[in-house]
Amino acid sequence: MLIKNGKVIIFEDNDVKVKQIDIKIKENKIDKIEERIEPEENEKVIDAINKVVMPGLINTHAHIAMSIFRGTFEGCDLYTWLNEKIWPIEAKLTSKEVYNASMLSIIEMISTGTTCVNDHYFFSKEIRKALEKSKMRAMITRVLMDSDGKEASENRINEFINLYETRNKEDNLISYSVAPHGLYTCSDNLLKISENLARQYNLPIHTHFLESINEIEDIKNIHNATATEVLKKYFDGIPTILAHGVKINDEDIEVLKTMQCGISHNPISNFRLGCKIADVTKYLKNGINVALGTDGQGSGNNLDMFETMKLAALGQGGIHENEERITSKDVIKMATINGAKLLGIDNKVGSIEKGKEADLIIVDITPKLDNIKIIPNNDIISNLVYNTNGNSVQTTIVNGEILMENRKMKLIDENKIIEQFV
Amino acid sequence: MLIKNGKVIIFEDNDVKVKQIDIKIKENKIDKIEERIEPEENEKVIDAINKVVMPGLINTHAHIAMSIFRGTFEGCDLYTWLNEKIWPIEAKLTSKEVYNASMLSIIEMISTGTTCVNDHYFFSKEIRKALEKSKMRAMITRVLMDSDGKEASENRINEFINLYETRNKEDNLISYSVAPHGLYTCSDNLLKISENLARQYNLPIHTHFLESINEIEDIKNIHNATATEVLKKYFDGIPTILAHGVKINDEDIEVLKTMQCGISHNPISNFRLGCKIADVTKYLKNGINVALGTDGQGSGNNLDMFETMKLAALGQGGIHENEERITSKDVIKMATINGAKLLGIDNKVGSIEKGKEADLIIVDITPKLDNIKIIPNNDIISNLVYNTNGNSVQTTIVNGEILMENRKMKLIDENKIIEQFV
Repeated sequence: MLIKNGKVIIFEDNDVKVKQIDIKIKENKIDKIEERIEPEENEKVIDAINKVVMPGLINTHAHIAMSIFRGTFEGCDLYTWLNEKIWPIEAKLTSKEVYNASMLSIIEMISTGTTCVNDHYFFSKEIRKALEKSKMRAMITRVLMDSDGKEASENRINEFINLYETRNKEDNLISYSVAPHGLYTCSDNLLKISENLARQYNLPIHTHFLESINEIEDIKNIHNATATEVLKKYFDGIPTILAHGVKINDEDIEVLKTMQCGISHNPISNFRLGCKIADVTKYLKNGINVALGTDGQGSGNNLDMFETMKLAALGQGGIHENEERITSKDVIKMATINGAKLLGIDNKVGSIEKGKEADLIIVDITPKLDNIKIIPNNDIISNLVYNTNGNSVQTTIVNGEILMENRKMKLIDENKIIEQFV
Repeated sequence: MLIKNGKVIIFEDNDVKVKQIDIKIKENKIDKIEERIEPEENEKVIDAINKVVMPGLINTHAHIAMSIFRGTFEGCDLYTWLNEKIWPIEAKLTSKEVYNASMLSIIEMISTGTTCVNDHYFFSKEIRKALEKSKMRAMITRVLMDSDGKEASENRINEFINLYETRNKEDNLISYSVAPHGLYTCSDNLLKISENLARQYNLPIHTHFLESINEIEDIKNIHNATATEVLKKYFDGIPTILAHGVKINDEDIEVLKTMQCGISHNPISNFRLGCKIADVTKYLKNGINVALGTDGQGSGNNLDMFETMKLAALGQGGIHENEERITSKDVIKMATINGAKLLGIDNKVGSIEKGKEADLIIVDITPKLDNIKIIPNNDIISNLVYNTNGNSVQTTIVNGEILMENRKMKLIDENKIIEQFV
């Protein structure tokens, strides 16, 4: 397959560049990137004139079955939202509902340019089934917690082990994490179990971390230590994906720098739940990897990573008054290569480079009425971050396979799924 | 004209409601709102099934000729941005450039659901010419300032007077404000002149107000008083549109409450220029009217009021930690009826009510791939604010006249304008 005439986003010389180049994909990999490549006989050619070709977006924290909660419970704080609203409903969810809700989210992701998602939920075999059908790239898990008792916790651990043990070892697209829900919902005992599972299976940890102000005190009460001390105690040396990280102070940063962890920044969810703004400018300056996530639709509104890029870039102006802060170029990296690093798959994806697996998206920038917000296109990167949304994505390719072409889904009958939610 | 089968946003009983009703427009006014209205012979009927019908959006602070600055000068603070970047370029702008840039913005506004804009710029006869051609509703002005000397200031005053004196008195769509640029760029003398013009012509004041932290000290130095004291001294009793109002403290609020003023909240621009977040939740609680604005594209990125609604709603979660704050219902009012109040035209527009002039928009909510972010549509108001952007606007009606229908512009050849910016 050949993608011709596109404006391609390339990471080079520590910069983000836009180059007019052709890309050849062979099997599942990027085979060649050159100024001009001629197609072979019968080769599929995608004409990307007036299009941007960029690495597929990597959503590093989501709960994709939560599409059903979209638009609900506005104005709650995190604890009220979890304890009084979400958890009671989730307790009644069925596996079929989780499957359908996941399929709906998968359509949302593919059609808005996400090629890889890091999920954090339960009924995870259903989620895996939906992801396998879609051929998206993903990291999945079965979330662990024991704040509601021992029996429930043991069931969850068994479900996780069963999920992992029943994995398809040939599957190049789906990987796994061990996911203690958060330090305020897991005992020391469960964190120890999580650590052991991660070390035994050689898997990363994926946990909620210092999302809201309330956690600080709760973690102290449960573990008799600060959040970062707890983290260091159990997960030192284990790749660790910290979702949110809004309430990280300078002391925490010093500890986190010594660990193999990074932050999944979820600005829309943080705003919506009144958690304030994570200082990701500071984290990045301190060498801590920061990637982006949408969270579930209940708090994050939607899974459109373009919206999350926009809020990540703008949000820093809410805390850095007249100060240097991240730019749209940083944000493009956060949504792609930083996400790949956070999930430990940057050797495979996250950038358009020869030899990497072909996860990429093609975004329409044709000068026309529907693109009026990017005219004049003085700065393509800035316009991608500040003035584009996922509906501009025309074509989504994962592992060399086209999942959506010219906004037609290739493997999923989207209308059949959509009609179940009308 | 009859709009049938739409879900109509109605302000009633101090609430925002969604009702399935028909709307009859006769000449330029809303003539009838009833559950079911049958069309007369030969009457134009718009079928709004699977559509939301809502009041046209009112952008209460913009510089529409600044479309040409889109995507430029990321990461600046306000003063650097104005003094070093924008003003030197603006000094070289031609009237033709202002006309074309304004037409581009008008296309952007009509196609994203804005029916009325409050502009703040120069070469204002060109802007008026563009607005007249488009048949949008607008408030315009010629901005005044004298921080760059007396002669330039006198020219501006004369241009303003000339602009106003050459107005078309029959024109129901275009009104005028007196616009001292800001209290940090106008001397006492110029503020007195502005006051006199406003009282003489019976016009509102439209000024930048406490947008950035630097202004506080500068205003003290220039006027030997706080910003709010200066405002009260000159503009007490005059309807006053305060753009931004980010740095308003509790003392200021007490004074502002005694005046005829309101705030145009421009969250995207404030974020982008690192001005932090205006506490509009507090202003509204104190009975101060708050409406929404986009600012120019140089700082505000785009003129899509749906994006501004989203940022207005989310932004408050950046300062109100676990606290009550404005909801999507408040934000819908800020973008419509509050805007009409701020511009002093709420007797004419701002809501869908019998007898008002017909400024309204029709938004597509059909369950389909391009609307995946509003599926399931558990809460239409929430989805309009958090998950919709201006490209979902199908039809835009101002003063009973269709300016865009099914995303076809009716009075403007958009491609002719667009091709000048490619």
